[in-house]
Amino acid sequence: MGEDSVSVEDEVLLAHGYSEWSSHNIETLPVAVVYPRSTEECSEMVKICLKYKIPIIPYSGGSSVEGNFSAPYGGVSFDFVQMGAILELHSADMDVVVQPSVSWMDLNEKLKAHGLFFPIDPGPTAMIGGMVGTNCSGTNAVRYGTMKDWVVNLTVVLADGQVIKTRRRPRKTSAGYNLTGLFVGSEGTLGIVTEITLKLAPIPEETGVGVVTFPSMRKAAETAIEVIRKGIPVGAIEILDDVQMGVINRVGSTLRVWEESPTLFFKFAGTKNSVQDNIAEVAKVVKSHGGSDFEFAQGEEQQKQLWSARKQALWSMLSLRESGGESWATDVAVPLSRVAELVEVCKKEMDALGLFGSMLGHIGDGNFHETILYDGTKPEERAKVEKCVRDMVHLAIGMEGTCTGEHGIGLGKKSFLKEELGPGPLNVMRAIKKSLDPFWLMNPGKIFDR
Amino acid sequence: MGEDSVSVEDEVLLAHGYSEWSSHNIETLPVAVVYPRSTEECSEMVKICLKYKIPIIPYSGGSSVEGNFSAPYGGVSFDFVQMGAILELHSADMDVVVQPSVSWMDLNEKLKAHGLFFPIDPGPTAMIGGMVGTNCSGTNAVRYGTMKDWVVNLTVVLADGQVIKTRRRPRKTSAGYNLTGLFVGSEGTLGIVTEITLKLAPIPEETGVGVVTFPSMRKAAETAIEVIRKGIPVGAIEILDDVQMGVINRVGSTLRVWEESPTLFFKFAGTKNSVQDNIAEVAKVVKSHGGSDFEFAQGEEQQKQLWSARKQALWSMLSLRESGGESWATDVAVPLSRVAELVEVCKKEMDALGLFGSMLGHIGDGNFHETILYDGTKPEERAKVEKCVRDMVHLAIGMEGTCTGEHGIGLGKKSFLKEELGPGPLNVMRAIKKSLDPFWLMNPGKIFDR
Repeated sequence: MGEDSVSVEDEVLLAHGYSEWSSHNIETLPVAVVYPRSTEECSEMVKICLKYKIPIIPYSGGSSVEGNFSAPYGGVSFDFVQMGAILELHSADMDVVVQPSVSWMDLNEKLKAHGLFFPIDPGPTAMIGGMVGTNCSGTNAVRYGTMKDWVVNLTVVLADGQVIKTRRRPRKTSAGYNLTGLFVGSEGTLGIVTEITLKLAPIPEETGVGVVTFPSMRKAAETAIEVIRKGIPVGAIEILDDVQMGVINRVGSTLRVWEESPTLFFKFAGTKNSVQDNIAEVAKVVKSHGGSDFEFAQGEEQQKQLWSARKQALWSMLSLRESGGESWATDVAVPLSRVAELVEVCKKEMDALGLFGSMLGHIGDGNFHETILYDGTKPEERAKVEKCVRDMVHLAIGMEGTCTGEHGIGLGKKSFLKEELGPGPLNVMRAIKKSLDPFWLMNPGKIFDR
Repeated sequence: MGEDSVSVEDEVLLAHGYSEWSSHNIETLPVAVVYPRSTEECSEMVKICLKYKIPIIPYSGGSSVEGNFSAPYGGVSFDFVQMGAILELHSADMDVVVQPSVSWMDLNEKLKAHGLFFPIDPGPTAMIGGMVGTNCSGTNAVRYGTMKDWVVNLTVVLADGQVIKTRRRPRKTSAGYNLTGLFVGSEGTLGIVTEITLKLAPIPEETGVGVVTFPSMRKAAETAIEVIRKGIPVGAIEILDDVQMGVINRVGSTLRVWEESPTLFFKFAGTKNSVQDNIAEVAKVVKSHGGSDFEFAQGEEQQKQLWSARKQALWSMLSLRESGGESWATDVAVPLSRVAELVEVCKKEMDALGLFGSMLGHIGDGNFHETILYDGTKPEERAKVEKCVRDMVHLAIGMEGTCTGEHGIGLGKKSFLKEELGPGPLNVMRAIKKSLDPFWLMNPGKIFDR
C-alpha cells in the first residue's frame, strides 16, 4: 500500500498512544500506525492484522479522555487522517455521508449555506469517527439527543475484514436488529467505522443565550431541573461552579470579568417569537429560585460573548496545569431529581480532600463533569483524585445513574461498568463481542476484559 | 405454577396465533399459552421451554400486522396479560417503570394528572411490550422519534432463563454497548422483555390541529416535506389519499363529510404563541403549493373533531371488509426527497391493478402505509395484492429506503430484509442471535431464518 501508509516512528507512536487531555495514560504504545485511504484499504489492513493476530485500534480526533484509543496490548493504530471527506450531501433529505476524520465543526461550517447543521457538539477537536465510538454528546443534547440519535447508517469493517453497511438511508426503520445503534458507542471493539451517514437539522431562525448566577450549586441545579420539568424548550442548560468561573477570570480567556458564583448558561433556539417566549418563561423560574438578574443576548456577537465563558471553561482549566501537572476529567449521569444532591455532595468532598477542581454539567440531561488538576509526580495527590472520582461514580451509580454520560468506558471505567450493570449485561456484551471478534483483536482491553 | 398459568384450549390457541388485523396468517398455532405473573415466573417458564427445546413467543397487545407473534414452529405463546401494572412513576425524573401489558393509551390517561405523557402513539390497542418488540412509532414520531428513543432500560429474560437489566435509570449514558437499543426492535428473538422504563415528556401547554386538501398526492407530499425541511416544529404531518377520505365518508365514522381529495393533517404543540406562529408558517407553505384553505382548530373538542378522520382511517377501512374479506396493511420508509414520487408511483400501480386500497403516511418521516382489501377466497386477487406490495417495497428499497418504517419484519418481510441489507448485516444479526439463543428458541422464524 505504499510507504506513506504506515509509520513506526517513536514520535508518531507516542502521539497515537498518549494524550495530554486523557485521564488515563499508560506505558505501552501501539507498535505501528497505519493510514487507510479507503474502506477497501482499511479492510485489507484488517485482514493483515487478523493473519498475524495483531490488535487494531481506531483513531480519529484523539480527544477522548478515558484511554479509549490507548494501546494496552500494543497493536496497530488505524489513523483515519486520510479519510476526512464529506462524500455526499443530501440537502433535501437532510442527511450527509462522511468519512471518520471529518471534524464536526468544519462540517457545520460547510453546511451553513444549506441552512442545515449537525447538532452534536462535543469538544471542538472531536471527529465523527470517534464521536460514533463513544456515543458522545455535548451542550445540545438536552434538545437534540446524543450521537446515537443522529446516525442513519454506518459502513463498518468487521474483524475478519468483511465490509458491511448497517442500513440504507431511511430516517426511520423497524427492519431487523438495530446494528447502527450497537456499533455507536462500542468504541471500536466490534468493528472499524469507515463511513457514516448523519441526520441533519434545519438551522433555527433565531437563537439566544442567557446567563444567571445563584447563591449555591443546589439552587442552580434545582432551577435547571424545573425548566426541563416544565417542558420549556431550551437549546442547552449548562451549570458551572464558582471555581470554574474564577478560573475563567484568572486565565482571562474571555473579554469580561464574571461573577465567581454558581452559574447557569442557557441557549435558546426557535422562531423569533418562541425564543422571546422561552426566555420569559425561564426568567420566571430563575426568579422563583433566587437567581440573579437574568442577562441575555440575541445578537450574534453578543451571544458569542455571553457564551464565551462556557466555551472556554475546559481550556481555561487545562491551561492552569504546571510542569508535571496532570488533569483528570470525567463525567457521570443520574436521574434528573438527583442532580442537585449529586453536585452538592461532590463539591463538598472535593473541598474536603483539598483538591483543585472545577464542576460543569449538561445539567438538563443529569450529566455532570469534574475536571481536577493535580501534581502527577506526587502519588498521594493522585490517590486523592482517584478517591474523589471513585466516590463520585459510586454516588451516581447508587442514585440509579451511570458511570459515564458521554465519555465512554475506555480503559478508565471498566471496573465501574461492572459495578453499574453487574455480570449479566456484561456477559451479554462479551457474547456479542466474541461472536463478531473471536480473536479479540478489535480495540482489546476497552469497555470490558475477555 | 397453578392451573391458571397455562391454557391449551383451541380458542385460546387460535387467538394467540391468528389475528384478523394481520397481513400474514399461517396454518400452525402455538401448542400452549402461558401467563407469567412476574419476571421470576417468566424465567422459570423459559427454563422449562429450554429443557424441552420448545419455541417461546412473546405476546401482549396482539395488534402487529406482519405475523410478528405467529407460531410457524408451534411452541408456547407467553401472554403477559397478568403483567399489566405501572410499577413506579418517577414524576420528577420524567420516567415510568411498566410491565409489558400496559396499554400506551391507559398509561397516558394515568399520567395526565402529573403533566406528563408518553409520546409514542401506534394503534390504540398496542401495548408497551409489543411496542418495544417492533420499535414502533406513529403520528408523533416526526417530533418525538420512535420507540427506541424513549426506552431507558429493559428487564429481559434471556434464552437460558437468566434475567438481566440493560441499564439503571440515567436519561443519557455512554457506558458500554447499547443493549437496550439492541433488544428494542428485535421482536422477541433475543429475549423476553418483562419490565420497561420509559422516558416521559411534559404535556405541551397548547396544541392545535390543521387540515388542508390538495389537487394531487404529489402536491400534498411536497408540501409536507417543505414544512419539515424548513424546520417548522410540527407535532405531526399525516397524508391521506382520496380513497381513504372517501372511505371515511362512506362508513360515516366521523361527525362530518370530508372533501374526497389528498389531504394533509397537521398537529401543532408548544406554547400558545409558538402554536400560533407555527400554524401561520405552515399556512404559508400550504398556499405556495396550491393547497385549499387551511382549516384549523385549537379548542379541545374542535381539535378532536378535525383529527377524527385521521383517527378513524384504518378502522373505517377495515370495517368495509365483507365475508371472506382480508386486509393487507403494510409500510415502507424512504429518504424525504423521494416520498412524493413513491406515493405517486404506488398510487398508479394500485389503480392499474384494479385493487381497492387506501394510502396514508407519517409523511414527515418518509414513512408511508398502504391498506388493501381483497377477497381471500380468490387466489388471483391475492396474487395482485402481493405484486402491489412487492413492487412498493422494491421501489422503496431502490430509493435507499427500508422495507418497514414501523411494523417490523415478522414473518412477512423476511425476504425483503435480505434484499434491503444483503447477506453481510444479516449474518451479523445471525451471529448475535446465535450467541444469545444457541438453540434458536426465542420467537423462531421471525426477522431472518437460521
